Amino acid sequence: MWGSAEHQPKAYCFSTLPTLTPTQLAANRGLYGDERRTNMPMLKDPSTKYRLFKPIDLPNRKWPTKTLDKVPRWLATDLRDGNQSLVDPMNSEQKWRYFKMLVELGFTEIEISFPSSGDTDYEFTRRLVESPDAVPHGVALQVLSPCRQDLIKQTVKAVEGAQNAILHLYLATSLCFQQIVLSQSEEESIALAVACTKFARSITKDNLSTRTHWQYEFSPETFSDTSMDFAVKICEAVKAAWEPSESNPIIFNLPATVEMSTPNVYADQIEYFCQHVTEREKICVSLHCHNDRGCATAASELGQLAGAQRVEGTLFGNGERTGNVDLVNLALNLYSQGIHPGLDFSDINSVIDIVEESNNIPVHARTPYGGSLVQCAFSGSHQDAIKKGFQARKSQGLTDKDPWQIPYLPLDPQDIGRTYEAVIRVNSQSGKGGVAWVIQRHLELDLPRGLQVAFSKIVQREADARSKELLPREIVKLFEDQYHLKGNPRFTLVDYSITPERSITSTTNGAPVEGQKIRSQNTQNSMRKFEGVLDFDGTEHKISGIGNGALSSLANALHSVQIDLDVAHYSEHAIGSQVKRNVKAATYIECTAAGSNERVWGVGIHEDVVQASLNAMLSAASLFISSRPSTPMPIQH
Amino acid sequence: MWGSAEHQPKAYCFSTLPTLTPTQLAANRGLYGDERRTNMPMLKDPSTKYRLFKPIDLPNRKWPTKTLDKVPRWLATDLRDGNQSLVDPMNSEQKWRYFKMLVELGFTEIEISFPSSGDTDYEFTRRLVESPDAVPHGVALQVLSPCRQDLIKQTVKAVEGAQNAILHLYLATSLCFQQIVLSQSEEESIALAVACTKFARSITKDNLSTRTHWQYEFSPETFSDTSMDFAVKICEAVKAAWEPSESNPIIFNLPATVEMSTPNVYADQIEYFCQHVTEREKICVSLHCHNDRGCATAASELGQLAGAQRVEGTLFGNGERTGNVDLVNLALNLYSQGIHPGLDFSDINSVIDIVEESNNIPVHARTPYGGSLVQCAFSGSHQDAIKKGFQARKSQGLTDKDPWQIPYLPLDPQDIGRTYEAVIRVNSQSGKGGVAWVIQRHLELDLPRGLQVAFSKIVQREADARSKELLPREIVKLFEDQYHLKGNPRFTLVDYSITPERSITSTTNGAPVEGQKIRSQNTQNSMRKFEGVLDFDGTEHKISGIGNGALSSLANALHSVQIDLDVAHYSEHAIGSQVKRNVKAATYIECTAAGSNERVWGVGIHEDVVQASLNAMLSAASLFISSRPSTPMPIQH
Repeated sequence: MWGSAEHQPKAYCFSTLPTLTPTQLAANRGLYGDERRTNMPMLKDPSTKYRLFKPIDLPNRKWPTKTLDKVPRWLATDLRDGNQSLVDPMNSEQKWRYFKMLVELGFTEIEISFPSSGDTDYEFTRRLVESPDAVPHGVALQVLSPCRQDLIKQTVKAVEGAQNAILHLYLATSLCFQQIVLSQSEEESIALAVACTKFARSITKDNLSTRTHWQYEFSPETFSDTSMDFAVKICEAVKAAWEPSESNPIIFNLPATVEMSTPNVYADQIEYFCQHVTEREKICVSLHCHNDRGCATAASELGQLAGAQRVEGTLFGNGERTGNVDLVNLALNLYSQGIHPGLDFSDINSVIDIVEESNNIPVHARTPYGGSLVQCAFSGSHQDAIKKGFQARKSQGLTDKDPWQIPYLPLDPQDIGRTYEAVIRVNSQSGKGGVAWVIQRHLELDLPRGLQVAFSKIVQREADARSKELLPREIVKLFEDQYHLKGNPRFTLVDYSITPERSITSTTNGAPVEGQKIRSQNTQNSMRKFEGVLDFDGTEHKISGIGNGALSSLANALHSVQIDLDVAHYSEHAIGSQVKRNVKAATYIECTAAGSNERVWGVGIHEDVVQASLNAMLSAASLFISSRPSTPMPIQH
Repeated sequence: MWGSAEHQPKAYCFSTLPTLTPTQLAANRGLYGDERRTNMPMLKDPSTKYRLFKPIDLPNRKWPTKTLDKVPRWLATDLRDGNQSLVDPMNSEQKWRYFKMLVELGFTEIEISFPSSGDTDYEFTRRLVESPDAVPHGVALQVLSPCRQDLIKQTVKAVEGAQNAILHLYLATSLCFQQIVLSQSEEESIALAVACTKFARSITKDNLSTRTHWQYEFSPETFSDTSMDFAVKICEAVKAAWEPSESNPIIFNLPATVEMSTPNVYADQIEYFCQHVTEREKICVSLHCHNDRGCATAASELGQLAGAQRVEGTLFGNGERTGNVDLVNLALNLYSQGIHPGLDFSDINSVIDIVEESNNIPVHARTPYGGSLVQCAFSGSHQDAIKKGFQARKSQGLTDKDPWQIPYLPLDPQDIGRTYEAVIRVNSQSGKGGVAWVIQRHLELDLPRGLQVAFSKIVQREADARSKELLPREIVKLFEDQYHLKGNPRFTLVDYSITPERSITSTTNGAPVEGQKIRSQNTQNSMRKFEGVLDFDGTEHKISGIGNGALSSLANALHSVQIDLDVAHYSEHAIGSQVKRNVKAATYIECTAAGSNERVWGVGIHEDVVQASLNAMLSAASLFISSRPSTPMPIQH
């Protein structure tokens, strides 16, 4: 039972809220009165059923001091280890298309089949070997066989005639497999591996009539659960039987057939093997990690630090159970660290399409690099930081040759064929940064901070109410509606003139303007008179006012119809392109209502910089008047 | 450009097939004449754009010698970091249900919200605090706030009144964030963190009227990209401002906000921090790993070896971009190593249901532990090994208290509420082991090896032809059809008798049997006579024969109608249960056709052990006659 002190959970950080015991956990199930859960069986005690994996002793390990700075040999086993684990394995046409994709991506070693497993694999292998131009010069076809003479013979026959072939044999070496599965001793295993290697040699590289350049790979399957001394011993015997050379080394694949412990333990095993095996220069150490503990990527990277030179895996980690290690992940990890992986994922979406169609398993939305959500940010603070990162890059004039440094984006989405459009997505958790980004990318409008805050509140209210993500076009429409950029403003400027006004006490007809408020009277010379025709809710009205510029004269004209606004913020920038001759002015105005704390923003866009400003103020006025429950315009006719 | 020797890929294992350069890769795109790909832009040179992450120097690191043998404090941030990254964040009801699930699973620290981010989060927090019985005694509610006084105030207000609360503040500390996002110096950052901590303290633990037991967590956000000395420095300042105690330690969360390098580098950073920070006993070091490089699980495990005591993450790894670390993965990694994680995943399917409904992101089929395919095996050799593992367990009389040791299955599926039914699935890549497993589990038939081989060929042919997985019921039907266990055999035994036969030269009517072949004549006493009525394709026939037992007398009877079979293998076992009184005999017979290499299997099942044997032989005879293009039965009337 759970009672033994030795096996109780040791939460070694003091906490007022300790980790629960199985008994407490079982009690928890009844907390909310769900009978089904309360009646579940008591948790089992794992201390008698599972055992801590015992790591090897490697006191002077070197790998933790090393850095991942080299490109390994890549072996893609999508068509073998990946394919065999599919609910519906690929048919020959799917395999064919997948193979071509792997070649185009730059793989030069591809495990294509398990030819003795059945007709599909055998015939696919022959088809590849016999088709002219299907396999480019530099690509080696790898085929897998168990340690059985008849199957080895069939396997070699399947690939015979290929320009480059790698024959791959495996034999499980862990105690568990030797006892339960193979019922043979270590000595018998070594004898079998040696006999099969010699037989394989006789019908491959020693066969004078072969047209194929042969390489040989041997896997002590279940290596990660094998006694290291036995792993070295059986590989030494196999090496002696094959007699590799420096120019054609033997490949020893040391698989984590099942991931047994933390990835540092696997790295220790690899380093131990590399230290203890002889004629290291005639050996290529290969890794083949499965992901049972979720650490296949880490194990493959730490294994390289420990001395391995080759990595076997599949695109997006397909394979038995939790899958093989994900080669896209491993390759692009190198890319983002300053090393080209020698594989081409510059159009990752096309790769995903073929992988998904072939495997009939979707690439997860959060898969490193390839997932649909991994270049996105929803949170406000993330969006703000990303936006600032892009702005800094732009304002510093940085190009693709300069170091990539954008907060929260370790890889430039463009390097895998994605755009920046989807980087920032807006839901109820998003803030001003994301909203401003969308407006900037779609309308070219670089909103002032205050307007970002004001508009993002509107967006958040909308997203909260709808309880869903707002798409960029929905945000753009919300913006255009809010600030009356398209159609149906309360006010439209039909026509206007702005003329010099020498006397502040007379209007064009010479009479003083009643009730008119003059804001800026510093110099008489700068006074301007605004006269215009305004469409208000479908009816045209003439208004006029005097100020020290276009805006203040319009403000005064509006005052004459009892819209009483002060300009608190004004900014403006150009949008569009000189080249395309579509430059416009974008103007932002924040107004305060006289005598209150109410603030409204207005946005105006026009080819004429003056009219852009006037539009912005009318946009603010529209918002102002709309925010009042019922403000019939006291018209001056 | 790519030319510089320094940045060329260094494939340091000799290979006749070197890794390709970007130029060669670009050329590859045209290999199969797909113009769209050929015309893609040339690959960028990453050596100028991305830089190798520089690890810290930690020559005497201890963590690689340690073993993961303790349960950390778990913090679930599904409702905060997870929720904020969803396309459609959870509504209040979804959050409520998710919270209850987390409590039932055994989480005692749950980050429930970012209360200053919007109404949904604020109101959800209040609802939890104010609902009686919603939050059990031992559960602490954690809330997140940026370092801004007004937001901290709002955050504290949201959770005030909870029995246990953890206030969590964050401030980015990397150079990149300080320069681009915050525009502040290290000194300014420290001052801000200290001021906010003091303010937070004044309205939480120093507030005499508070009804809440407060803990405090501070995150130097982007820790993994921060100068370690600065990370220690700012945390020392925050610690001095908060004044933690051993009984209520301050939580320093050291996030891999973005994963920067291999997980050993992160572990070094954690160990460095733990070594250099003072008053270690008053600090709980927490990990918060994102999965950008696919190593979040490894980083969280190695970080624990390096001294961290607490882990933050989400169920199945939801969260910004590639997600937070997957707590199900981390917890069950402990379980399979002999430690109970203090969390209850004994009904993992129910957890998946709620997670998927809440996040609207499916749990991937290959996700460790929870994925739908991870307890399955399709490959023949895997199936064979698993089957042998279960058999060994059974034959050795092992129970749940004995160590779990099944090839390819690191965890007993039953420990997460799954059955063995789906462990072995059969497609065209599967072998005899999987097929035999299905037959054994569904029909209780323990097929002899030869029959496994014969029937698995039939299954493989069918799977190859259909190019899809065969479901267990399809395999069972194929078996029943093949061996005529249900309906429509060519032969049916309508009635029979077996009587002693003293003379081998006479039949019941005294005349010698013409053309009859007697196989076993050792003892006259053992001779038996078979007489029976056989239905063949709908017509009844009488046949008879003499042999030294039931089978050979039937064989001889069949010989009289020119079906000439020898018994090469015979075996039998009981099926059903004594208790249920439904015990039957299952008989397997392999026959060779006289004068040929043809072999056919037959299977018979019957309450009567004799009839089971006769049925098995007739099953073989049916198969034999059906395998011949046209063998009209030469009837004896």
